[in-house]
Amino acid sequence: MKKGIAASKGYAIGNVVIKANIEIEITDKKVDDIDVEKKRLSTAIENSRAQLQKIKEKAEKELGADKAAVFESHIMLLDDPEFTGAVEGKVASESTNAEKAVSEVVEMYMGIFAAIEDEYMRERAADVKDVGKRIIGNLAGTITGDGDLNENTVIVAHDLTPSDTAQLDRSKVIGFLTNIGGRTSHSAIMARTLEIPAVVGLNDITESVKDGDLVIVDGIEGEVIINPDESTLKIYTEKKDKFEKEREELKKLIDVETKTKAGKRVEVCGNIGKAQDVEGVLANGGDGIGLFRTEFLYMDRDSIPTEEEQFESYKYVVEKMEGRPVVIRTLDIGGDKKLPYLPLPEEMNPFLGYRAIRLCLGRKDIFKVQLRALLRASAFGNLKIMFPMISSLEEFLAAKEVLSECMEELKAEGKEFNAELETGIMVEIPAAAVMADELAKYVDFFSIGTNDLIQYTLAADRMNENVSYLYNPMHPAVLRLIKMTIEAAHKEGKWCGMCGEMAGDEKAIPTLTQYGLDEFSMSASSILSAKKYIMNN
Amino acid sequence: MKKGIAASKGYAIGNVVIKANIEIEITDKKVDDIDVEKKRLSTAIENSRAQLQKIKEKAEKELGADKAAVFESHIMLLDDPEFTGAVEGKVASESTNAEKAVSEVVEMYMGIFAAIEDEYMRERAADVKDVGKRIIGNLAGTITGDGDLNENTVIVAHDLTPSDTAQLDRSKVIGFLTNIGGRTSHSAIMARTLEIPAVVGLNDITESVKDGDLVIVDGIEGEVIINPDESTLKIYTEKKDKFEKEREELKKLIDVETKTKAGKRVEVCGNIGKAQDVEGVLANGGDGIGLFRTEFLYMDRDSIPTEEEQFESYKYVVEKMEGRPVVIRTLDIGGDKKLPYLPLPEEMNPFLGYRAIRLCLGRKDIFKVQLRALLRASAFGNLKIMFPMISSLEEFLAAKEVLSECMEELKAEGKEFNAELETGIMVEIPAAAVMADELAKYVDFFSIGTNDLIQYTLAADRMNENVSYLYNPMHPAVLRLIKMTIEAAHKEGKWCGMCGEMAGDEKAIPTLTQYGLDEFSMSASSILSAKKYIMNN
Repeated sequence: MKKGIAASKGYAIGNVVIKANIEIEITDKKVDDIDVEKKRLSTAIENSRAQLQKIKEKAEKELGADKAAVFESHIMLLDDPEFTGAVEGKVASESTNAEKAVSEVVEMYMGIFAAIEDEYMRERAADVKDVGKRIIGNLAGTITGDGDLNENTVIVAHDLTPSDTAQLDRSKVIGFLTNIGGRTSHSAIMARTLEIPAVVGLNDITESVKDGDLVIVDGIEGEVIINPDESTLKIYTEKKDKFEKEREELKKLIDVETKTKAGKRVEVCGNIGKAQDVEGVLANGGDGIGLFRTEFLYMDRDSIPTEEEQFESYKYVVEKMEGRPVVIRTLDIGGDKKLPYLPLPEEMNPFLGYRAIRLCLGRKDIFKVQLRALLRASAFGNLKIMFPMISSLEEFLAAKEVLSECMEELKAEGKEFNAELETGIMVEIPAAAVMADELAKYVDFFSIGTNDLIQYTLAADRMNENVSYLYNPMHPAVLRLIKMTIEAAHKEGKWCGMCGEMAGDEKAIPTLTQYGLDEFSMSASSILSAKKYIMNN
Repeated sequence: MKKGIAASKGYAIGNVVIKANIEIEITDKKVDDIDVEKKRLSTAIENSRAQLQKIKEKAEKELGADKAAVFESHIMLLDDPEFTGAVEGKVASESTNAEKAVSEVVEMYMGIFAAIEDEYMRERAADVKDVGKRIIGNLAGTITGDGDLNENTVIVAHDLTPSDTAQLDRSKVIGFLTNIGGRTSHSAIMARTLEIPAVVGLNDITESVKDGDLVIVDGIEGEVIINPDESTLKIYTEKKDKFEKEREELKKLIDVETKTKAGKRVEVCGNIGKAQDVEGVLANGGDGIGLFRTEFLYMDRDSIPTEEEQFESYKYVVEKMEGRPVVIRTLDIGGDKKLPYLPLPEEMNPFLGYRAIRLCLGRKDIFKVQLRALLRASAFGNLKIMFPMISSLEEFLAAKEVLSECMEELKAEGKEFNAELETGIMVEIPAAAVMADELAKYVDFFSIGTNDLIQYTLAADRMNENVSYLYNPMHPAVLRLIKMTIEAAHKEGKWCGMCGEMAGDEKAIPTLTQYGLDEFSMSASSILSAKKYIMNN
C-alpha cells in the first residue's frame, strides 16, 4: 500500500498504464542560421496553438467552460508578445537554439512565479511549464496522441499537465496516480470535475508499478494498493459500489431545498474564485454564491483590472445566478498575496499585516474602482458586498463611507445601481467576533471566515506544519466565537453565513446547524454532501 | 524644534557639547611582520580590558550591578577565544592588519546578529560593535578620557556607546541627544537609570547644533528646542520644576502599599529579563516580580544553560525578593526569537508559529531542565511557574504532567522543592481569554500578556508600521477579553495579573482597576507612576 494525497474522491480498480515522461534533452548548441531557427520556432508555436485549440474544444464539451478556460490561458500565453518576444529575442540576439530559448524563458517565468507565496500563482507556473513543454515537444517532434487504451485503465505518471488530463479518454480511464502535485493542482481539480478518482503526490509511484499491474485507487484516503489479494479486492469492490451509489443519491439533492430537521430553511452556497466557476456551483445545486474571492481578477496580469473589466465579471456572475444571492468580497490582497504591479513592503508576519480592507482603505484609488464596478453590477442581480478583515466598527463605517462616495458619483453620472444592496463583513478576526453584538447593528450580514478566525484565535498558522496540529475548528474557543457571532446577528434580525472550509465539514455541520447558521458556503464539490448532512441535523 | 524618540523622561536646559565621533580609517594594507602585528593586537586587547574594568567598577558604584553587567559582557567578549581567535587568525593566516581584522570579525558578528529579529539580540550587536571600536581605538591610539566639561552640559553625539554613557560625569551632564538609537538601546536604558533626560533617533542633531548652543531637552515628548526664546525658556523651566517635584513625590510611594480608591490592595510588580534586574524592581518599590522572561538566560551563548546555571539565577531572584512573589515564565523561544544552538524551521508567520509552550512540549529534554531548576529554586522563596502561549486546557495539563514528572524525579533524588508552588498561564492567545472560565478551574493564576493578546485579537503585528495604527489596547474587543479573564479567575477564587505594557499605561489603569485586576506588572521604571495612578482610581 502506498500513501499519497487524496485528490479526487472515489474508488477505481483497474490496470496500470504508465505514461512515459519523454524528456527532451536541451543542448547549449548555438544555431548558424537564425532565420531558419525562428521559422522552426514559429511553426512549433503555431502547432501548439492548433493543438491547444482542439483540446480546449474537447474540454468545453466534456468539462464545461470553466475548466476549459485554462487552455484559453495557455493559448493567450502563446499570443503574448512578452513571452514569444523573449524567446525570439534569445534566438535572434544570442543564436540560442529554439528549445533552449523556450526552456530559458520558461525558467525565468517559473522563477518569478515561484517567488510568490500563493497557491494560485504557483499553479500558473505549472501552466507556463506545460506550454513550454508543448512547444519544445513540437520542436522536437515528440508530441503524439495517446495510444489506444484498454477499458479500466489507471494512468500512472510523474505528473499530468492540464492538457494531459483534459485529453484523457473518460470511457477508458477510471483513475490516475501521480508522483507529484497537490489537492489544488489543475490535474486534481480536473479529476474532481471528471469524477475520476485520483491520488497525487505519491513520490515514486511510477517506479513502484509496471504496466498491467492491478491497482486499487482509494481517492478518499489517498491510498493505492498494488496487486491486491482476493479479500482486499472484495472489500474495495464493496466500498466502490457503496460510494457510487451514494454519489448517485447525492445527485438527487441538486434541486432539493435544504432544511434542517427542525424545519429551518438554510442556504447552501458555493465559494468561487473566477467568474466561470459559477457553472460548477449551479451544477451542484448551489443556492447562491457565498463568497466570490475577487483577488483572482487582479492576479496574473500587469495592471489593475479596469472598472469595465471588473463590472463585466461581476455582471456575468449575478446574471448567471438569476436572482440568487451573490456575495462578493472586496479585494483581499496584501500579506502573502502579492500583485506584481502593486509593490508592498516585506512583512515579518504577513497574516498579521497590511492586507485586505486595511490596504483598500489606504488605497482608495484602487478600492473605488472595484466598488463602482460592484455597484454597477448590482443593477443586474442580487449582489451583496462583503468587506474582509474587519476588526472594528470604524473600519466598516469607513468602507461604507467610500461606498457612499461611489454611489454619489454614479448617481451624478446617471449610472444605475441598487442603492439598497446589502453590505456585510467577514468575521475572521477575533475582535469582530467578540464585538459581533455591536457590529450587528450596522451590517446587513456576517459571513464567518473560519480559516482565518481559527488561525488568529489559536495563534496558529495552519500552513505551518509544526503548529498545524493546533488548528482545530472544533476548539471550544472557536465554537464559542461562532455561536456569539450567529446569536448577535439574529438578535439584530440579520443573517449569518460561513464561508470557510468548516462550513462543508461533516463533523462541524451538526454544531453549526444547532447554532442556527443561516448560510453555508463552500467549494462546489462539497455542496451536495453538505446538503445531506444539514438535512440529517 | 526637532523631533526624535523620547528615551528618558524629564527636562534639561543646558549648553551643547558635541562629542566628536573619531572615525578611524581602516585600510587593506597587509602587514610584513605577523608577530609584531599580533603583539600590537594583544596589547590593544589588554588595554581595552583594563579600561572596561575601570568603567565597570565606576558603573557598579554609580549605576548598580545590573547596569554594570553590560561591561562584564564586554570583557567576556575580549576573553572569548572564538572572538579573539578569529581576529588573530586573520592576522596570522592572511597578514591582515589588526584594525582590519577586528573590523572584519565585528562585521561578521554583526551580520549574524542582524539576521535575528529580536531587539535584545540587536542590542548585543551594538555591544560587539562597541568593543570592536574600543580595540581599534586602542590600536590607533585615539582613546582618551573626556575633557573637562562645564556644568549643565547637554552631550550631543551621533551615538553613545554603553561605555560612553557609563562614563558621563553626572555632576556635569544633565541630558543627551543622539542621531541614532531607540527606546530600548543600552544608552537609553542607562539614561533612564541615571535619570538623565534624553532624546535619541534625531537623525542629524550633530549637524543642527554647535558647541555652546543653548538647548531644551524634552525627554517626555522627544523634542529638542535649539536656542529658545525667553518665553519658551520660561515655559520649559516651569515644566522642568514641576516634573522634578513630581518625581520626588513619586519616590515617596516606594514603600507605600498600593490600594485603589475602593480600598482593594493590588500588587505592583516588575518585569525582568535578567536576574540582576531585580535590583531595579526593589529600588522602585515593586511588590514582586510579575514576569521573569527566562529566554534571556538562553540567549547569547552557545549551549542550553544547565540546570545548575538556571537554578542559580532563579534562586538569586527569589532570595533577593525575600518572600515576595516571583512569577517565572518558562522558555518563550522560537518564532522570531532564535537560539544559535537550537535550529528551528524558517516560518512565514513566526508570531503564529512554533514557539514557547509548543516548542517546550515538543522538546521535553529542554523543558525538563528548566522545570527542575525552577522547582529546586522554589525551595528558596515564593516562586510561581507560568506557562506562555497556552491556547487550550490540554496544553496546560500536558505542561503540568511534565512538571509532575520532574517533581517525582527530584523527590527520588532527595532534592528539596515547594510541592505546593503555584502554576499559572499567560493569557495572550484569544482562545485562552475566551475559555478563561474553564481554564480558571485548573490554574492557580492568570497573567494577561497584552502585547500578544492585542496582536492576535486584532490580527495586527504591532512591529509592522503599516498596521501599527490598529494596535489599540483600548479596543473594545480587547477590553472585553480582559474583563472576561479577570472575572473568570475571580469566580474560581484565583488571582489575575497583567504583564504587558498596558499594565503601566496611565490611560488603561482606571479601566483595569475597575475590572478588579489583582496584579500589575511592568518595567521597573513605570512602577511608581503606576502606583500613583492606581491609588487615584
